[in-house]
Amino acid sequence: MNYRMISSTVGKLLMIEALFMALPLFISFYYDEGLSAALVYAAVMALLLIIGAVLSFFKPEHKRIFAKEGFVIVALSWILVALFGALPFYFSRAIPSFTDAFFETVSGLTTTGASILTDIEALPKSLLFWRSFTHWIGGMGVVVFVLALLPQKDTRSMHIMRAEVPGPIVGKLLSKTTATARILYLLYTAITLLETFILYIGKVPLFDSITLAFSTAGTGGFAIKNISVAAYDSLYVEIVLSLFMIIFGINFNLFYLILVRQVKRVLKSEELWVYLSIIAVSTVTIALNILPAVNSFGAALRDAGFTVSSIISTTGFVTADFNTWPTFSKCIIVALMLVGSMAGSTGGGLKIARIVILFKSGFREIRRAIHPGTVKCIKLDGAVVDKETVSTVNSYFTIYMVIVAVSTILVSFNNLDFTSTVSSVITCINNVGPGLNAVGPTSNFSSLTDFSKIVLTIDMLIGRLEIFPMVILFSPAAWKKNS
Amino acid sequence: MNYRMISSTVGKLLMIEALFMALPLFISFYYDEGLSAALVYAAVMALLLIIGAVLSFFKPEHKRIFAKEGFVIVALSWILVALFGALPFYFSRAIPSFTDAFFETVSGLTTTGASILTDIEALPKSLLFWRSFTHWIGGMGVVVFVLALLPQKDTRSMHIMRAEVPGPIVGKLLSKTTATARILYLLYTAITLLETFILYIGKVPLFDSITLAFSTAGTGGFAIKNISVAAYDSLYVEIVLSLFMIIFGINFNLFYLILVRQVKRVLKSEELWVYLSIIAVSTVTIALNILPAVNSFGAALRDAGFTVSSIISTTGFVTADFNTWPTFSKCIIVALMLVGSMAGSTGGGLKIARIVILFKSGFREIRRAIHPGTVKCIKLDGAVVDKETVSTVNSYFTIYMVIVAVSTILVSFNNLDFTSTVSSVITCINNVGPGLNAVGPTSNFSSLTDFSKIVLTIDMLIGRLEIFPMVILFSPAAWKKNS
Repeated sequence: MNYRMISSTVGKLLMIEALFMALPLFISFYYDEGLSAALVYAAVMALLLIIGAVLSFFKPEHKRIFAKEGFVIVALSWILVALFGALPFYFSRAIPSFTDAFFETVSGLTTTGASILTDIEALPKSLLFWRSFTHWIGGMGVVVFVLALLPQKDTRSMHIMRAEVPGPIVGKLLSKTTATARILYLLYTAITLLETFILYIGKVPLFDSITLAFSTAGTGGFAIKNISVAAYDSLYVEIVLSLFMIIFGINFNLFYLILVRQVKRVLKSEELWVYLSIIAVSTVTIALNILPAVNSFGAALRDAGFTVSSIISTTGFVTADFNTWPTFSKCIIVALMLVGSMAGSTGGGLKIARIVILFKSGFREIRRAIHPGTVKCIKLDGAVVDKETVSTVNSYFTIYMVIVAVSTILVSFNNLDFTSTVSSVITCINNVGPGLNAVGPTSNFSSLTDFSKIVLTIDMLIGRLEIFPMVILFSPAAWKKNS
Repeated sequence: MNYRMISSTVGKLLMIEALFMALPLFISFYYDEGLSAALVYAAVMALLLIIGAVLSFFKPEHKRIFAKEGFVIVALSWILVALFGALPFYFSRAIPSFTDAFFETVSGLTTTGASILTDIEALPKSLLFWRSFTHWIGGMGVVVFVLALLPQKDTRSMHIMRAEVPGPIVGKLLSKTTATARILYLLYTAITLLETFILYIGKVPLFDSITLAFSTAGTGGFAIKNISVAAYDSLYVEIVLSLFMIIFGINFNLFYLILVRQVKRVLKSEELWVYLSIIAVSTVTIALNILPAVNSFGAALRDAGFTVSSIISTTGFVTADFNTWPTFSKCIIVALMLVGSMAGSTGGGLKIARIVILFKSGFREIRRAIHPGTVKCIKLDGAVVDKETVSTVNSYFTIYMVIVAVSTILVSFNNLDFTSTVSSVITCINNVGPGLNAVGPTSNFSSLTDFSKIVLTIDMLIGRLEIFPMVILFSPAAWKKNS
């Protein structure tokens, strides 16, 4: 283990977090929240700067790191950024329990959007801002920010990228990962600004527009209203948010390809077509299913469309209480939570690319049973997916299901009903936000025991970091010497 | 496709079913059920003999078959035997709906034990016998019977065995599959007789002892009392049944090894130790979890032990209503349904061997992420599991989960609550019997729509035949010429 490298990277990151916290500090001044509010942010910033400086004080002797160091850096970074990010909630007494504050911050950074708050609107504006801002920070991954902001010319970055960027395939977009990260970061900021602007010209207050855009960009789902997006009661807002939720569920590489005018390659993306097809089919079937309960097909389509975009992108904004929908719609919603968005997006879930590979490898297995001699390759976008990747995707799915099963059993100690228990785990590990029944769209996670909250917090991190970094952080094999 | 071979094998099988039906015919005479009852069995027997004779009339030109013919024979056999096996229920008007009668018979033959009957005790004895007997027939697989009863010296049997015997690994116990099938068949009969005898000396009526033994042997779960095994209210009966349920969940190869005095190899079976450990740990944790609701730890252990044995062996006998237990116990029970019993037993579920391989391949993947260069082999019982098997097991799990997801969505049209919907699919595809809530241990499947019953009937067959035969039967690729 290159401990100094780990320490210095994490240290730099904490100092960047201090800079990010200047924004809510500024907001607290702007809205006259008083000295005590400002002091909280100032204190946390000071703490971050000191600890960050100490950690990055010891310069690494060499910058060579292996995959395992990459995973450890990523896992530690997320946990530490969340621990410090929770402090403003805790110190300001807005969230009196630290477990709750940590849950809320992890939910923000992992872009889950599950909340323990019973009265969101009671929070001061600066904290509401910080809460939504954690979605935006988390969205592209804490370490991608480091890569984008700190120029480095060594090769270690690739290992961190691989652990960080969601999805099974990291396209080698550019040879230099720092440059890649910068482009992604610029794109991300530009689309967020565009969304803010479009919401604002639709008569949404500026503060609401900014925070909604943060939440959409990270596919997070925190809103600043108790009844989420339903509070705006505006078809315009719902259409804009639906579109941007779908956009932020798309692989960012595709936007880069549009930038360099390779639209043909974008249109050839199997993953994109599967993603859009699932959205279309789910919207129509749910709309037909909920039709008897609403006034018109238009109203049904509006609720179904928004909910499907919100769930498949793993954002979790709510306009309709899907907990009251028929079981068929609920099952589709749970299935969408598991599927999730495209690889390389800010969304969560298993990712469309993995689902496509899993289906293709399943069909291949059936074909092999019919004609034992013939073994065909699996192709994606016309290119052969190597055996290693297929086997990794299959193992990923297995480990994922095992973690879902174990987490469900642990949360079941809480003695919520079976549906609430299972859906709480599924919504957290897929970074969606709302579940069913006791953790449904009009409810929240406040009533759960601390033990359940900790399990679900870990699940959010596991889901966001795509299992391996978290598992490896706690695996003794990674910490053995000379291995 | 060697159509003549398929037709003649299925034909022979239907004639054997006619012979089996002589037993309930005899029972109907013994209990003086009248001429009309006897006529029903006689009519179905005549039908089976005629159709069987016609199908096996065309002698195959050659006996060479490929894997796909093996799968088609197995799938068609199970469906046809179930269709004719349902006729006594239907003709006697004991089950007035044919969909229901088919559900009940498939549930019997696949050794699931899920029932649509609201008053089991209202059935005449001969039908109760036939109902339990289908468990026994299904238990070892319809085709294993054919192999055991019809001497053949060609090689085609191996393909049928592979499709039939549950679990990922068919140990080459003996070079001649016919001889293997005979030994398994004798063992199966001997243990069934032993169980009948032990129940009978425990003051259980002979008819009850025989039918209970049939249900245990096939790990089915049909009882002849409305409140299942709870009706006997006897610790002796519960202990005997628990032990035999556990025994029938064990790989039959291990019994053969005991017969040939290779006990050391039995003790080295990883799968056996995992199976027994899961039973022990689950029993103790559930007992502790339900302790507050019952009188004593002894009572808790009794209910937990029986339920765990019943569920992991996928039998489905009921003494306690686990639907009223805390969510933790329910989650463990659902997990046990998915895990199931050992490969090569009459039980269902994913099978312990697959679970062990899945866990090992998951751990290997994590180790590979830590040390990318090193790839270790997966071992089971000290022997290397070849890559092909590991990849097949992973694909199997994926296809299995996809079928669970699709079935859940189809059954969700029924608009039962989410837990009932999911658990109905899980209990059927794993051939267990009882689920949760609306399909819980004190309830039944009678209230479901015909569409749901058909989906669950297919799931029972898919689970029992380990996916491939059913999928291949309906796959166009298998029916293409010259392929």
